[in-house]
Amino acid sequence: MDDETLLMSILFDFYGDLLTEKQREYYDLYHNEDLSLSEIAEKDGISRQGVYDIVTRAEKTLSEFEQKTGVIQRWRETRAGLERAEALARELLRLSGDEGELSDLASQLALTLEGLKG
Amino acid sequence: MDDETLLMSILFDFYGDLLTEKQREYYDLYHNEDLSLSEIAEKDGISRQGVYDIVTRAEKTLSEFEQKTGVIQRWRETRAGLERAEALARELLRLSGDEGELSDLASQLALTLEGLKG
Repeated sequence: MDDETLLMSILFDFYGDLLTEKQREYYDLYHNEDLSLSEIAEKDGISRQGVYDIVTRAEKTLSEFEQKTGVIQRWRETRAGLERAEALARELLRLSGDEGELSDLASQLALTLEGLKG
Repeated sequence: MDDETLLMSILFDFYGDLLTEKQREYYDLYHNEDLSLSEIAEKDGISRQGVYDIVTRAEKTLSEFEQKTGVIQRWRETRAGLERAEALARELLRLSGDEGELSDLASQLALTLEGLKG
């Protein structure tokens, strides 16, 4: 999955419910289900241009929300921090060997951080 | 700060830029600067009802974004998880005493997690 595809998928995950039902459906088919514009058009009996307009409008709406809120940028920074923290926790776990309580805590911590990355 | 006031402030922090300029200004004065509706009305020479309508509309807009995206709910869950992880890191730091590398890692980890809580 390239960066652009990944971004389109994350945008949909965060803000998809802000779209109209039709925008959501076409966006999902195009970006997540990997159908072509022509395939979506044929399925619904509308023009390829019609599908293109709806998908493009949806992309613009989602991108504008991100430009204004920066929510995904914030989430990415948090996620990068969680990766760093998890690496530290795994190193702690390795160093603590089987030393009972230290090892247990490091293990709990690594699992907690892994869960938070979602 | 009660829960409702805190929520209004977080909503504004996340989604404030989605409001119109006037909505943003009045919402900020009312919820963050703690001016009364009458004080805002007097300042701008409009009716108290006019200010009330703009603030109420802004509250509705922000609440609807949260209902649709759940971004703040997600952020709160992450933050609660970070609190748990930080407590574990501090306990690790306490137990590792001055044991060189272990102690250094636990300290780095606690600081990283503290930074992520934002």
